[in-house]
Amino acid sequence: MNGIARTPEPPYYAVIFTSERTDGDQGYAEMAEEMEKLAYSQPGFLGVESAREGLGITVSYWESLEAIKNWKQNERHLIAQQQGKSDWYLEYKTRICKVERDYGFEKNAEPFHK
Amino acid sequence: MNGIARTPEPPYYAVIFTSERTDGDQGYAEMAEEMEKLAYSQPGFLGVESAREGLGITVSYWESLEAIKNWKQNERHLIAQQQGKSDWYLEYKTRICKVERDYGFEKNAEPFHK
Repeated sequence: MNGIARTPEPPYYAVIFTSERTDGDQGYAEMAEEMEKLAYSQPGFLGVESAREGLGITVSYWESLEAIKNWKQNERHLIAQQQGKSDWYLEYKTRICKVERDYGFEKNAEPFHK
Repeated sequence: MNGIARTPEPPYYAVIFTSERTDGDQGYAEMAEEMEKLAYSQPGFLGVESAREGLGITVSYWESLEAIKNWKQNERHLIAQQQGKSDWYLEYKTRICKVERDYGFEKNAEPFHK
């Protein structure tokens, strides 16, 4: 499991992938692990956040739209996408976004006086 | 639990809220339910998707940056945000995004011939 992605200052890009799975694994867990490792080695990859609770949400972060396009066309990733449609997903939605602004909070990072 | 949000054609806006919780509930579940109901009644609200698996990811969708700003300043929501910092979250990150493009897949909606 990943934590919160350590992304740079905006602007950068996000791909929000929301999905509902079919029943059973059917090779999903293994491929998901492979895809995550592969994503980390892609040019322009900035990080990924993922959670599933019935609904699955995976948000990956990228330097540019070109980096997103290259990842979508990666040979192994194309195979995963095809198997996603045939075996793993009942439904999904992919949203390509430009992150315009961000802010955060860390409990232990708060100064006592500011 | 929600499914995949039924958002309109882009462009629209997304707020990606990624968080790590403190231990224990401390009123969190009740407030989360109240905030979700309240969000649905806000002008410009388009939908929300949420999952927690250790890491929590909530993505809310909005018609405009103004709608996002109004929600952030909602009186009850301000109280929830404050309690979030004091009680519920070890860490969070909020990212304001413009959704530029989206596409989806539905297993049962696929035509046999196309």
